[in-house]
Parts: sequence; C-alpha cells; structure tokens
Amino acid sequence: MSNKRVYLFAEGNASMKDLLGGKGANLAEMSNIGLPVPPGFTITTEVCNEYYADGATMPPGLMDEVRAALATVEKDLRKGLGDPKNPLLVSVRSGAKFSMPGMMDTILNLGLNPQTIEGLIAQSGNERFVYDANRRFIMMFSDVVLGVDKHKFEVIFDNHKKQKGYKQDGDLTAEDLKRICAEFLALVQVETGQGFPADPWRQLELAIEAVFRSWHNDRAIVYRRQERIADDIGTAVNVQAMVFGNLGDDCGTGVAFTRDPSTGEDELYGEFLMNAQGEDVVAGVRTPIAISELKEQNPGIYDEFHAIGRRLEEHYKDMMDLEFTIERNRLFMLQCRVGKRTGPAAVRIAVEMVEQGLITKEEAIQRVTASHLDQLLHPRIDETYVADRQISALAKGLAASPGAAVGKAVFDSETAEKLGESGEKVVLVRDETNPDDVGGMLASQGILTARGGKTSHAAVVARGFGIPCVAGCEALEVDLHERCFRVGPVTVREGDWISIDGSTGEVYNVQLALIAPDIGGQFGTLMSWCDEYRRLRVRTNADNPRDAQQAIDFGCEGIGLCRTEHMFFEDDRLPIVQEMILTKSEAMREAALKKLLAVQQSDFEAIFEVMDGRPVTVRLIDPPLHEFLPSYDELLREVTELRMAVATLGGEALKHLLDEKERMMKTVESMREANPMLGLRGVRLSIVFPGIVVMQTRAILQAAATLIKHGKRVLPEIMIPLVAHVNELRTVQGQLEEVARQIVAEQGVDIPYLFGTMIEIPRAALTAEQIAESAQFFSFGTNDLTQTTFGFSRDDAEGKFLHRYVEQKILPVNPFETIDIDGVGQLMRIAVEEGKSANPTLKCGICGEHGGDPESIYFCHDLGLDYVSCSPFRVPIARLASAQAALRGKVAVSVDK
Amino acid sequence: MSNKRVYLFAEGNASMKDLLGGKGANLAEMSNIGLPVPPGFTITTEVCNEYYADGATMPPGLMDEVRAALATVEKDLRKGLGDPKNPLLVSVRSGAKFSMPGMMDTILNLGLNPQTIEGLIAQSGNERFVYDANRRFIMMFSDVVLGVDKHKFEVIFDNHKKQKGYKQDGDLTAEDLKRICAEFLALVQVETGQGFPADPWRQLELAIEAVFRSWHNDRAIVYRRQERIADDIGTAVNVQAMVFGNLGDDCGTGVAFTRDPSTGEDELYGEFLMNAQGEDVVAGVRTPIAISELKEQNPGIYDEFHAIGRRLEEHYKDMMDLEFTIERNRLFMLQCRVGKRTGPAAVRIAVEMVEQGLITKEEAIQRVTASHLDQLLHPRIDETYVADRQISALAKGLAASPGAAVGKAVFDSETAEKLGESGEKVVLVRDETNPDDVGGMLASQGILTARGGKTSHAAVVARGFGIPCVAGCEALEVDLHERCFRVGPVTVREGDWISIDGSTGEVYNVQLALIAPDIGGQFGTLMSWCDEYRRLRVRTNADNPRDAQQAIDFGCEGIGLCRTEHMFFEDDRLPIVQEMILTKSEAMREAALKKLLAVQQSDFEAIFEVMDGRPVTVRLIDPPLHEFLPSYDELLREVTELRMAVATLGGEALKHLLDEKERMMKTVESMREANPMLGLRGVRLSIVFPGIVVMQTRAILQAAATLIKHGKRVLPEIMIPLVAHVNELRTVQGQLEEVARQIVAEQGVDIPYLFGTMIEIPRAALTAEQIAESAQFFSFGTNDLTQTTFGFSRDDAEGKFLHRYVEQKILPVNPFETIDIDGVGQLMRIAVEEGKSANPTLKCGICGEHGGDPESIYFCHDLGLDYVSCSPFRVPIARLASAQAALRGKVAVSVDK
Repeated sequence: MSNKRVYLFAEGNASMKDLLGGKGANLAEMSNIGLPVPPGFTITTEVCNEYYADGATMPPGLMDEVRAALATVEKDLRKGLGDPKNPLLVSVRSGAKFSMPGMMDTILNLGLNPQTIEGLIAQSGNERFVYDANRRFIMMFSDVVLGVDKHKFEVIFDNHKKQKGYKQDGDLTAEDLKRICAEFLALVQVETGQGFPADPWRQLELAIEAVFRSWHNDRAIVYRRQERIADDIGTAVNVQAMVFGNLGDDCGTGVAFTRDPSTGEDELYGEFLMNAQGEDVVAGVRTPIAISELKEQNPGIYDEFHAIGRRLEEHYKDMMDLEFTIERNRLFMLQCRVGKRTGPAAVRIAVEMVEQGLITKEEAIQRVTASHLDQLLHPRIDETYVADRQISALAKGLAASPGAAVGKAVFDSETAEKLGESGEKVVLVRDETNPDDVGGMLASQGILTARGGKTSHAAVVARGFGIPCVAGCEALEVDLHERCFRVGPVTVREGDWISIDGSTGEVYNVQLALIAPDIGGQFGTLMSWCDEYRRLRVRTNADNPRDAQQAIDFGCEGIGLCRTEHMFFEDDRLPIVQEMILTKSEAMREAALKKLLAVQQSDFEAIFEVMDGRPVTVRLIDPPLHEFLPSYDELLREVTELRMAVATLGGEALKHLLDEKERMMKTVESMREANPMLGLRGVRLSIVFPGIVVMQTRAILQAAATLIKHGKRVLPEIMIPLVAHVNELRTVQGQLEEVARQIVAEQGVDIPYLFGTMIEIPRAALTAEQIAESAQFFSFGTNDLTQTTFGFSRDDAEGKFLHRYVEQKILPVNPFETIDIDGVGQLMRIAVEEGKSANPTLKCGICGEHGGDPESIYFCHDLGLDYVSCSPFRVPIARLASAQAALRGKVAVSVDK
Repeated sequence: MSNKRVYLFAEGNASMKDLLGGKGANLAEMSNIGLPVPPGFTITTEVCNEYYADGATMPPGLMDEVRAALATVEKDLRKGLGDPKNPLLVSVRSGAKFSMPGMMDTILNLGLNPQTIEGLIAQSGNERFVYDANRRFIMMFSDVVLGVDKHKFEVIFDNHKKQKGYKQDGDLTAEDLKRICAEFLALVQVETGQGFPADPWRQLELAIEAVFRSWHNDRAIVYRRQERIADDIGTAVNVQAMVFGNLGDDCGTGVAFTRDPSTGEDELYGEFLMNAQGEDVVAGVRTPIAISELKEQNPGIYDEFHAIGRRLEEHYKDMMDLEFTIERNRLFMLQCRVGKRTGPAAVRIAVEMVEQGLITKEEAIQRVTASHLDQLLHPRIDETYVADRQISALAKGLAASPGAAVGKAVFDSETAEKLGESGEKVVLVRDETNPDDVGGMLASQGILTARGGKTSHAAVVARGFGIPCVAGCEALEVDLHERCFRVGPVTVREGDWISIDGSTGEVYNVQLALIAPDIGGQFGTLMSWCDEYRRLRVRTNADNPRDAQQAIDFGCEGIGLCRTEHMFFEDDRLPIVQEMILTKSEAMREAALKKLLAVQQSDFEAIFEVMDGRPVTVRLIDPPLHEFLPSYDELLREVTELRMAVATLGGEALKHLLDEKERMMKTVESMREANPMLGLRGVRLSIVFPGIVVMQTRAILQAAATLIKHGKRVLPEIMIPLVAHVNELRTVQGQLEEVARQIVAEQGVDIPYLFGTMIEIPRAALTAEQIAESAQFFSFGTNDLTQTTFGFSRDDAEGKFLHRYVEQKILPVNPFETIDIDGVGQLMRIAVEEGKSANPTLKCGICGEHGGDPESIYFCHDLGLDYVSCSPFRVPIARLASAQAALRGKVAVSVDK
C-alpha cells in the first residue's frame, strides 16, 4: 500500500484506475490535458480497504490529508468550505476501477448550512436556486448518510406541491423551497433524534464514510457478482467543487457520446437540458433535447464541446462517454470514460478509427468483443422498441442458442412444419424436444423448451442449425392437451405471438420488433485484419452441407467435428438404425448396415463437396445405442396399461401388441445404463460392434473416392471418440486400415486420410505419449473432458448445483463455458506436450464448445494448439479471439469494463 | 537369442526356466545334484518362437543338434535310437516356463518299429510289455502327430477286449496286443493314406514339431489367457530316455508331494501303482495306493524316495511336487516342481519351514499369496466332496463377496428373516437387492442375485458384512410369483437347498459340504511376521461396530472409511431420511435432521467405543438423495395402474392414493439424474443442503465428547467426499469448524479431530497442491477415481464391455480390481507429490476396494502412502501384501506359477 491517501486531480492520470477508480483517474487526466474540469481530489481505493480492514472505521489522519487537499481547491477557487462569505460547495462521489452505474452513493451540494446559504444567496443573487440546492442536499445526505428513508422526504415535497396546486417542480418559489427545507430538517430531527449536521467538515467526513459503506451495500454486491468484479478492489471517493447547471438560462447540463453508441456513426450523440442539474436529465422530469440542438441554441458552447470530444477521442483513442455542465455560459467537464456500445457500433467504430488514423489494426481487433460480434451475427431484439413500450419479459430460461426470434406459438412439430411451409413464422414450444422434432425445429424461427439444459437435444440441434433457442425455461407449464402454456396466471395459446431471445434466455408473450443482422463491409474488413494476425486455424462443427456452407461463408477453414450419429436421427434412417440395434440375426444386422452405408456415403459426398478440399474431421459413432430406441418410461407406461387392458378385456390383438411392446421393453431395459455418459458409447461401441466402424469407414472413404474420381479434392480425418487406452485406438485402427486397403484396391484411387482420436477422457490425456504413437491428430473434446475431470454430469450439474457454485464463487466461472485452466487445462497441457514429444507431426485441435469461447481460445493459443473448431455462428468470434490471443502481450490495451 | 538350441540335462539348471521351461530346468537341476534322472536333453523355448517366426517350419539345422545331444545319451546308456539290438526309447514332452497341466502334448515310447520291437523283446524278455508299449506309442503318436482321432483307436481296443470277454486291460495277452498294434497300423494307413513312419529319427522330428504346434492349440490359448501367461514365451521340448514302471512287479510309478498340499502337514503325500506306466496312475483304471504303503511294500525304495524328497526341499527350500518311476527296483526321478497348495497348507508350510530353518521369515511371507489367505478366512467348498460326487455347477455369476454358503433358497427378505431367526440356513435369491433387503441379507448364509455387478447393492453390502455373495448371475430367471428360479430346464423352488461360492461365482442346486475357516496359530505367527516388515498401516472399511470388531480381530489399526449413509438405510431411519428429503418446510427438515442426529450420534459412540482410540475416518454423506427414495419405475407403474383404475372405477380412496403417488412420483422425477454417479452427491450435497453437514459433524463430535468424558480415547477424522475444487472443501470446512467450536464450548472438553478429503476426482488429484492447504489428510477413493479417469461407469462397464476388454487384452487387467498405474496411478502420484509438497504433514491413504488388492497395495507402498484401508476380511491380506511390498526387491524369490 502506498502512503499517499489523497490525490489532487493534478497529481493523477488515466493509468491510475486501480488506485483512483475510473472516474477519478479520468477527471485527473482531463484536468492535466487542460480541459475545463472543476477542481477536486480523489481518496484512493486503498483507503476503502483500509476502512474495512479496521472493522469499518475511518482511518486516523485521513481527514487531515483531506483538509490539506481541499485547501488547494479552496485556494484555487478563492472559496472556502463553510466560508459564510464565499462558500465552496462540493460533490462527493464514489468511483471504483470498473464502472458500477447507480450501485453506490453520491452526495451533491455538500457544504450548505444556515451561514453558507446566506453567503451563497448573496453571491449568486438567486435565492430559489440556493434553497433548491439545499433541499436536494438535505434529502441526499439524510438518505445516504443518516439512513432516513428518501421516500419520506418525497412525501413532504409532493404534499407541498399539491397543497399549492403546482404541477411542476419549477413552480415552487424560493419561499416554498425554504419551507420545505425547514420541514426536511424537522423530519431528520424526528427520525434520527438529533439535528442535521451543520458543520461542513463533519458533513464531508460523514459523506466520505458513507461512500465507503456503500461499497458493501446489497445492490453493489449483487452487481459485482454478476459482472465478476472482485470484492476487494474497493471504491475511491471523489470530492469536487460543484458547478451548477441550474443557475439560470445560461446554464445547463448534458451527457453525450463522441460517436453513436448504437450504430457507431461518427457524430456527437447525446442529450442536454438548460437550467438543470445532472439528475434532471436522468430523472426524465423534463424531456432532454438532442445534442445537435445545442449547435443552434449555443454554437459557441457546442463547438467547444465538440472540440473537446475530438480531443478526448484522440487522447484516449476510443469513443468516449462524457458528462458536462454549463455554468453561466462556461463549459465544465464532469466525467469521461470509454463509451459502451452495441456490437454493430463496436465494429464500425473500430474500423473507422483505423481509417481515420486514430488507432492501429491491432488495437481495432482488441476493441471488439465476442458478444459484440454475437449481436452482429444474429437478429436481435430492438431494445428501443422494448424500452419505449416498457415491455417486460414473461419468463427467463437458459440462453441456449443465440439470436432472437418472433413467431406464433405452436406445440408440436407437425403444426410447425405445416404452418412453416405456408410461410407463417412460428416458435416451437415443447417440454423438451427429441429426434422426431427436427423437422419442426427447422421450420421454426425459434425453439422454446420447458426442460433440459444447454446440452439438451433442443439446445444442441438449435445451435447446430443457428436457430435461436431458449431451453429449460422452468416457469413454463406446457399443456399439450389444451394446446397452451402457462406462466403463473398468464396463458399463451397456440397461435398467440411470442418472442424469445436466445442470447439472454428471455421469453415475451408479445410480438417484438427485431433488428436483422448486418454483416456488412466493416465486419469483413475487421475479419480480414483478424486473419492477418491469428496463428490458430478456425474450423467448424458441422454435420450437414447447410451448416458447412454457413461456416464457410463465415470464414471457416475446415470441419473440426462432423458427428455422424446426427445423420442417424433423421426420419428415413432411424428405423434402419433401430433394426440394426434390435435384430439378433447377424444377416439382418449386415443388411441394415448396408442400407446405412448408402445413406451415410451420400451424406459425406455432399459435405466433402461443399468443403472443397478443406479438412473434414469425421467422428465415428459416439452416443449410447439406446438413444436411438424408444424411451423406457414410455414403454413401461404402455406395457402397464396394456397389461391391465388385457387382464380386464382380453382380446388377441391387444395380447399381440402387449407381446411386442414387452419384447421391445425388455430390449430397451437390457440396454439401459446407470450412467450412460460413462457407459457403452464412443470407441467402446466400435469394439463391441465392429460392424459399425467398418460401415462408417467405408462410407467416408468411398465418398472420398467418388469425389476424387470426379477430380475434386478431399481430406477426410477419421476420429475415434472416448479413447481411454491406446489399445482401444489400436484395435479400431486395425479394423479401419483393413477397410481402407480394401477400398483403395476396389476403387483404384489413392485416398488421402488422417487417423486420430478425441482427447476427452482424463486417462487419454495422461497417457498421451502412448496414444500419440497411434494417432495423427488429437482433438480435445472439452465437454466430456470437463465432465470427467470434475466428475460433473453437465445435464445434472447445470440444473442442480452449478449455478450455486458460480453464485457462491466456489467456481470462478462455469467450466462448461470457459475452460478450467487449473484442472482441465492441465490435462490438455500434459496431452499436448507428451503427444508432440512422442509424435512431432501430431496435429492438435479442440472441438468442444469451448472452441467458440474467447477466454478458452486464448488458452488454446497459449497451449500451441493448431486449430479451434466451433459452431458455424461462432466462427467469426473464433477468428477474432484467435487474433486477440496472438496480439495479447504484444499490444497494451486498456479496456473499460 | 542364444545360438545354442539344445541343452543336455548336464548343461542346464533350475534358474534357466525361461530358456528350458520349468520341466527341463528342474530335470537338469536334479541331474546335476546327483539324483537318478534318466538322461536326456531340452530343446529351448526360443526354438519354439523360431519355429513360429519362420511360418511354422522346423528351423534348419535343429535336427543336427538334436542328433548330437542324443548321441551323448546313447553313449551314456549304451543304447541307440533305432538300434535293433539295443534300442533306445525316448519320451518327447512339452514344458513351458509356467506349468500348463494337460494343455500340451506328450509322446512316450518313441523309437519303436518292427526292428526295435524284436530287439526290445529279446532284451527285456517280456513280449507283452513291448507290444503294450507299442500300442500306446502308435496311439499317442497318431493322435498327436498324424492327427488321427484317438477315439478310433479306443474303439478297436475296446472291441478286442469285448470280443475276448476281457474285463481289464491286464487280461490282454501279448498276442492280443500284437494283433491290436497291427489293426492300429492299418487304421493309420486308411486314415492318413500312408504308412506309420518306421524311421525313429523321422518319428522324433515329427514329435518335436508336434510339441511346438501344440503351443498354439485352442485349449493352450484359452488357458494362457485365463492365467495371464504371455503367448510369446514358447514351450521347450524335453527328450528323455524312457524308463518303465510296467516291466513287472519290481517296477512301478507314482506322484507325490513332499508335504500334504491340502493341510501342509510335513509328511510325504502321494500315490503309486506297481507294474504301471505314469498315465495309469492318472487315468484311474486301477486304484492307486497311498505313498505310505510303499514303506511297507518296498522300504528301501521308500527310504530312498523320502530322502530325495528331503534333499529337494532343502535344495529348493519349498514343498515339491514329484514324479518317479521304479524300473526293476531302481528309482528314477522324472519331474520335480514347486507344489501347488491350498491356503491353509501354504501358511502351515511357510511357518513350519521357518521353524525348521529351511527358509527365512522374509521368504515365508513371500510364499503365501492373497488367495491363499482368502481361502483361509472364509468357509470354502469341500472340493473332495464335489470331485467324489462329480457335482457340477448349475450356473456361474460374478464372484462378488468371497466364501461359500449353503442354505435353502428363499425369495424375499421377510422369509429370510423368519427362517433365519428360527435357525434355518437360507440363501437369499433376488433379482437385485435394495436397502429394504438388508435385514434379510443379514439373516442369510449367502446372497445370490440375477442382476447387478460387483458394486451392486448386494455385492457392496455383502462384502461389508462378510457374507458370501454371487451377483449378476444372468442365467437365473427369478420368478417371484411362482417362488422359484429357473436356469434353463432346471427349476429351484423355495426351500430347495442350494450352495454358492462367492470366491468363484459358482452356483449349485445341491447342499454341498463346507470346510470351516481355520485361523489357527500359524496364521497368527505369519501375520505377526508381516507386521514386523510392513511400513504401510492397515485400516478397514467399516460402518458398524460388528464389522469394526471383526477387523480388529483381523489386526486392523483404524477405520479408513466409515460410510455414514449406510446408517441411513436401516429400517428405523429410512423414513426419517425420506422426510428430510421430501419436506418443503424448513422446520420439518430441521426436525428430521434432529432425529437423525440422535441415531447417528449413538452409532458413532458404538463404533468409537470398539475402536478404542484408533483413528476412525468418517465420510460425510455421499450418495445422491434419490437413492433413499422409492424407485421411479415402480412409481410410474403404480401411477399408470391407478390412473386406469380411477378412470374405469372412480372412487375417492383410489383418487386419494393416486394423488399421493403422483406427488411422490413428481418429487422422485425432479431428483432423477441422467448420470447420478456424476450428479448431486458427495460434497455437492453438503453445499446445497448445509444442514446435513452440520448434523453429521455434530453427531461425530458429540459422540467423541461423550466418550472423552467417560475417559475413553477417540480420534475421529472427518472426510469430505467427491471434492473437485479446493473451494468446495473450504466451504464445508467453514461450516464444520463453526459447529466444532460450538460443541467444544457446549461440552467443555477438547475434541481432537482431523479434517480431510477423498481424492476421487481427477481434478482433485491435479490440483492437490491447492487442496492440501485445506486438508490434513487425503484418502484415495480409487473406485470413483478409476471411473472418472477412464470415463467408465463401473455398473455399466462390467456388464457391457469390460470383460471383453480384458479378454481381448485391450486392458491388461480389470482396473476396478487392480489399480491402473499408467492412468489412475499417475494421478495418485501427482496428488501425493503435490499434496505433500504443499503440506508436509499430510497423511495419505487409500479406501477404495483396491486397498485390499495385493498388486495395488504394492503400488501404494511404492507411492509412499501411509495406510491402506479395506473390508474386514481383506485386512489380513493387506497386512501380508504390505509386508511383501516392503520386502520386494530386498529378497529374491522364485515363485512357480
């Protein structure tokens, strides 16, 4: 800890955010580059921690330092705190390193008391203004410092207006306000048992302490948890001479961005009010005026402000968010910070600032975040529309697949398909989806489910197809019988309009306006810059030509994960798959496999065609076979009912049906598993049922051969899932190479292909040295690797305890969203190091969902992976994050949170 | 590879088993210490590999070396192979490094042809003997070398006897045998299209090749897989001059052990027959005579043999298994090897040999294996009884809890309890057991289930209570309705006697005789020697005073795992536990927890009392809560039936019941998990329901306080299961220490206790450095650690693919039985190293089932763990294996497999 507790604005600068907070550091910076900032000083964030370390008591000696600093301000302005002749008023504001808007407390006009009121009236010649300032001060101070409920003051104020028949605050006279102040002071006496502190120094000390206290108020704590801000960074306290926008018509106040934060357009964007204090702009008592009007009303001030905006942009090299006050036709800057912006604005500003020579391409890349791009890539809800109409969400589920969708609620897939085909916009609402629903999902604008997590069928399929999805919205009661869903007292019927936001999880029972994605020229420019800097290659997870094409449009360089079993779920294949599983006859199984061979081969041909020589990693069958069979619960219900029916009614037809269902139930039961995630799936299936490997390998390589014969380029990479021991890989490799030799002989062409494995089981990572001897590539399946490394079943954890772990900070983040570097990351590091030492040409990539998460991509870059693979709509984000990863450490960036 | 392919017996010794095989090395050894061994030589095991490496062809030049070696034998005996005057006959026998009894082929009397027959008749003066030898030779050679079915020769032989009206082989005259030989040769001509080879050298070459070929016959392959013998060690071939026990009444042959292999008693044990060849002793055509009779019949030979036995014991320092032949009153040794023995014999022999000064205590410890002790500790099936009556098993399941049990089959727990209490011996037969069955299980001699693996409820509970159990016996069809079970055509009804062997998995539908365990003085002596040498401490897994006492009797030094939830399953507690889970009222939950507190506290008091100051590691609640609730399937069936009944019959009572069941079903459904093994259990439960930790900590520490106040010693160690992140541990630690402070204050005594965690999740091992800062001990839960490291659900894997993995050698052993050193072991090593580096006083142990597996214990010793913990009945095995681990490397041991 440094010894200096208090910094005059002249002593600080923008780089001192840790110590002075964001507001304090920027006030200092503006002061020092010569902008008109009312003088003041900042008490450091370390003092806040000191305050709490001492059991919430004011550090001894602090007020001496405050006094010394204020003396400089007083001297500067030739005013004095509490000086009855020439009174100085100050504001006391919190300001942490990261902006926490509205979370902590502020006190304005501090320094008023009976003596200084008189002095100020004499000096300003405006009695009404002084009493107005005083009533604001008493209320804020009493609320924040003395703990008197603000509402009680408002009652007095409103009663007074009513009594006098006033409509507006402005109608109150000086006399009225004086009276109100008197009543306020009486209220304080009654509520606190003592008088309002009249000594401005006492006022100041209490206000400073109140700011420290506000660091730990409930809403600040909740906000920090939400925004992942540490509790121990503390807040600074800014004490600054007051300037007044409400001294008369040559005064005013406003807020503005140097560029449009919504579109990024390069012109001042903001609002102001003449003869008003800052809080009036925010409170909406009077309607603020667009900043462009200021040019008409006061071109001098406008030009000065415009020039300051330019100057600050050049200085900070970013779009800025500014607060200003005009006091008697003099402009004062009260705040500046890097401005928040929408995704489209972020991209436009970054690209235009490069063109304007303000920043470099490297800096531009660092200015855009994943969520900025995500907004850009999907339709999004028009927030102005929602705000204007004060629409609130009906319910909130999991943000399972990004983007917003609007459509009529439908409750089954057939209806979705029927209406969808006739051009209607529909949103499919289900308890949960299953493979039968895929047709209906594709025909829908969006998908909403009451159950299931981010890896539920609905979520996975929706992300795959880029369809917005809100999953696991537990407040929903879906009533298929009545064809409606209920949320508390609200009922939404089939055909009613709903809107969902798959980026936030929000569900609305109205038809909202959407803003279409705009992947314009600036987006392309930014992406091309990213490609210049990134080292990681970017692939996509795609199981069909449509997704593959989408990903290519977004710039992918190959397929990192093509899941073959999704092909099995389609309507025309499922019966064949079931036949293959259920038959006890080898011949029937062979026949079923032969049918599947034909369809899989044509699937692969179509994908290879689209990918045009780019590598395509095909994962052999992975899920447990019972996923392809009817649900056991359903069968048990049916069998129980049939048994009762047969017992009471008899009848040959029923008996026959019962027999059939019982047989099916027995089969499904024999395949049931206690923990299917850790059961007979992945490479284990390929070992127990070698026929499937043979069929899939044949389908891949025959498809490749067909394309090669047509002069096309192909590069299949065959990937074995869930390997735990090198011998599993070797066993499958033997089968596979045998098939490959046969096909090369049959087809008479050489087929280039790679053979590799997923690393998604801890043991595979730990024994990577052995495994790398049999593999040409590793692809980290970080979903399963996270499940096994933590011993978390994602399906169970996310619903049952993971949210609590994150809330209670037991885990810093959800490890299914961002790679857990200490655990999962350590296994990845072991695997890469040992794998590459055993096999220096080993290619390493990642195909878990983390492949589209920026933090995880940074880690993958540092680890030296060759590529990341993610869903098509994350490809641009992965290109961006890969470039950012390559630039990290090279470029110093200051990003305001 | 050495260049020398053929070793005369004079050139070899006992240490050359790799090269000469067990039989060859021991024949050489016996020759060289001057024992009467017919001369011969050995073709090395490397030649066998050479044979296969060349595509199964005889290595060029081999027969030249054979000729040279045989020349020495011929010279020695003054006989010649094929010499019509003085013919030498030889045996050709296989002999690998490890004994593979009956698996490979042998040919006797090789060298006979029309010329040598005449010579041998002239020399021996016994025409009958010669033709008898010849018919044996033709049959063996034709069977083994020429591939003519042995059965066809037997038909000729038997027909001849029948035709002549003979009862016994001995009734056949020389003329008969000559005739039979002629018919045999005709048969060979017909079957092979060519004559029987008359050239003895050709005979020898073909016989040697046949032995090589027999290395890869089906039964040898199966045997090697079963016994885990490598395929590439090859067999040697022993060629040895024949001696004859069937030349007359001054001849004979026999087999004997130098001590009783069944009891270990120090006296010759074996059988012989006069005027017979070795195969007659084995074949059971004549009843052999006990070796003690030889003393009467031929004291000279007996004394010589007895002295040889002593000599060999002194030489080999072990109990030996011998074969001998008496030819014309001269004793010849044909084989010696270390004798196999039962568990009781192994212990007795080891201890007595130390007392006799033959071996050291260190060697004695190495002579006894885990399975020897296991036999000793449980009742076992009397194998003589089974063999004498030629009883075969009805079915085979998993060997789930060792020991044998005999009783009447019963099909439900009430019946088991009722009959059990009235003194009947019963075996409980169920599809699978559940917590309601515990009473019935305790009342039974053994448990037999049709479903479930080695970690099923039945298996776990049975092992805990030391009750024999065969689980997952899938051939069983249990018919509760008819109160019987079926295995194919066999039906076993309630009350029928059955026997089960929990050490082998065998099930018999008869009442077998059992041999009671005998834990006599020699067992105690051996154990005390083990204790002198071992460094590892041995604890037990025990959840109740009975098991704890049992383990103390077996020498345990503490409890390494006391599972608190088993206490919850008991009849009087389950309803309280269900109430705690199901209630939505905090007050009701508190009340339920209070009731559980009282019962848990008294449980702990009883256990602490028995353990008398030894450390007791108590694991806080671990399993998912739905394990305490009714089965969802059962509820679904009931609800479906009730719905139909209500729909057709109506009725308020039914409706009410339906409501109730539906509510319960909904609750159970809401707690259902996709992968319960990776779901809401372990420390996660303690975080989501902190009341349980508080209750359990209170129960443990209050129990401790109560004992301390009574002047008793206690040392509880509180253990948190399933930790993946140090923050989980810290969270629980905070709650727990708060409770501890309260109790110390309330009770006014200091309570010593340790706080630690299980390491059973890969992430915990990987981040051990962090975790060790909050833990005073680590206990490796290698069951779960193996599950997560491999991504194997044990319940699913063992039934569905693990057996195949072991059969196909994808995995060398079942990793749930023996620690996988490369994967799981690597995590353990990381955890111990990092844990101890962060916290040098960290205590490390293991409480997974591997804690009772010798190979795993060796690993734990090498890893530097402080203790192993295992079920009570494995405690002696753990003491033994710990001592063996400490001695490994220090003492060179040769153990015959």
